[in-house]
Amino acid sequence: MSIFWGKYPDIVIELDNIKKIIKENVKSSEKEFDEAISPLVNAGGKMLRPAFLLLAAKFGEYDPKKMQNLAAAIEMMHMATLVHDDVIDESKLRRGVETVQHKYSKEYAVYIGDFLFCQSFIMVSGFGYSTEILRDISKAISKICMGEIRQYNIRYMRNTSLKKYIKIISGKTAALFAISFYAGAKESNCNEKTSKLLGRVGYYIGMAFQIIDDLLDYSGDTNKLGKSAQSDLIKGYYTLPLIYAMTEDVNDEISTILDNSTLNDSDISKVIILVNKYNGIDKARNLADKYTKKAFEYIERLPNCESKEIIKDVSRKLLNRNF
Amino acid sequence: MSIFWGKYPDIVIELDNIKKIIKENVKSSEKEFDEAISPLVNAGGKMLRPAFLLLAAKFGEYDPKKMQNLAAAIEMMHMATLVHDDVIDESKLRRGVETVQHKYSKEYAVYIGDFLFCQSFIMVSGFGYSTEILRDISKAISKICMGEIRQYNIRYMRNTSLKKYIKIISGKTAALFAISFYAGAKESNCNEKTSKLLGRVGYYIGMAFQIIDDLLDYSGDTNKLGKSAQSDLIKGYYTLPLIYAMTEDVNDEISTILDNSTLNDSDISKVIILVNKYNGIDKARNLADKYTKKAFEYIERLPNCESKEIIKDVSRKLLNRNF
Repeated sequence: MSIFWGKYPDIVIELDNIKKIIKENVKSSEKEFDEAISPLVNAGGKMLRPAFLLLAAKFGEYDPKKMQNLAAAIEMMHMATLVHDDVIDESKLRRGVETVQHKYSKEYAVYIGDFLFCQSFIMVSGFGYSTEILRDISKAISKICMGEIRQYNIRYMRNTSLKKYIKIISGKTAALFAISFYAGAKESNCNEKTSKLLGRVGYYIGMAFQIIDDLLDYSGDTNKLGKSAQSDLIKGYYTLPLIYAMTEDVNDEISTILDNSTLNDSDISKVIILVNKYNGIDKARNLADKYTKKAFEYIERLPNCESKEIIKDVSRKLLNRNF
Repeated sequence: MSIFWGKYPDIVIELDNIKKIIKENVKSSEKEFDEAISPLVNAGGKMLRPAFLLLAAKFGEYDPKKMQNLAAAIEMMHMATLVHDDVIDESKLRRGVETVQHKYSKEYAVYIGDFLFCQSFIMVSGFGYSTEILRDISKAISKICMGEIRQYNIRYMRNTSLKKYIKIISGKTAALFAISFYAGAKESNCNEKTSKLLGRVGYYIGMAFQIIDDLLDYSGDTNKLGKSAQSDLIKGYYTLPLIYAMTEDVNDEISTILDNSTLNDSDISKVIILVNKYNGIDKARNLADKYTKKAFEYIERLPNCESKEIIKDVSRKLLNRNF
């Protein structure tokens, strides 16, 4: 977290504060439960959503306490979705830390996710936020669920369309980025135009971010990313580079490999080579670039202020990762 | 549902309407998802929480649409907790219908529960309910989570105290009954005194209801109840009749049986006989009676109206099930 935001010590201080707020709000009288939840909070990650919420809020009348509480709640909702995702994906590691479902049990992970959801809803229904924003946040979380369900439903399917993929990542990733920007602006009394503009910025950043994430599974250094590039393939999650490649792979070379009942290391290497051969990486990169461009177009339309420059700078950094 | 509420056709009509509201709010564009969720909605159960919410609301200025929407949301939250509980308990049946986790997968059940939670939060953040009530509802759901976690943490433990058991059922059952009554009253502009009184009624009904539920696992007709009386024991959930019996079982007869690595039918029968022998059933029944008595004391303190009489009547029916 501090490395990514290192250039902006004020933001680092605020994000540290948000971590404290999260810790206070997940405390319980159950020792085992606290032990399970605290590595999760400490792992942290880049804390993109809360940071973007604060940056968006600074376009309006910034109230640090009110905004940090809201940002903490949004991050907790994100954590809740991650914990439940790990149950589905049977992931062993997340942000370099052993997942709750692997260390304890799937059961425990279900409850911890639920608890994080509930606590975050308690937080957003305090502090006098508007009920409209509560509704918008609830809708965003619902979109995440639907995105995840759609993704789960089409596992192992070979004919996934670009449209389906876009719908999935709109829900599972872009919705929360969008609401983070929008809620920050709206609850700081920005006018509807600026709030919506910021919401769009969040949406496009989220889209580009997810495509790049999926791209790096086929082109990045897996050790560095801390998660296995193979895992999605084995679990039947076919993301954009593969979807693109399969449409050009008229002889079904990729599909034939995926038909194997198990996928060994050599199969995976072959798939990755074929995805490159059939332009899956390049085409995905092009689409990510389009969303990135859109994000910057919307950023340019924002009123000039320090926040705008920071959003530009970090988006550039975020959306140019490793390529 | 219609059998339990049969004496009150107006309530049956309202509960049918609540079912419709639930159906509208869980609709999605994903066919598979709709197929998974609709048996859940149709199974229904007694719909105690929404019915009690409406009855409490009728102590104030009753707004049918506003209250039915709130009641539907509360029932959806309850459904969400049931779906997630079934993941934990690996239950095959719920309300006579195959559970989502058994029919589809644990993974699917996690998402369906999450989706129900989200949709219900969207509903409660509409219709102009006060943010205080949203906060109270979120807190109640959080209490349910903590109750479930506590219950999960002490599985297979022989030294569970009465105090711990009470804490667990306060969270996992009584909290939602309490908020159903309280929210109905409060959002219908009842004064704080009446709202709180109704909240207490809900709490005591919830406590008695759960104790009776646990009791019936040791004394009821298991086929009729549609769930195995053995299941709790095998999974290490030791409820009140067993907790009471173990404190009198100084020679650890019960504990010795529970030490077996597997529990066969004969073991289970022996445990049930011992629970009877050591007064587990009688003592649990006494405690349920105490909570029932408390509930009726609070009901008596309510202003006189038709709702009060109905609450009295159905509570009598509910809390005298099978004994």
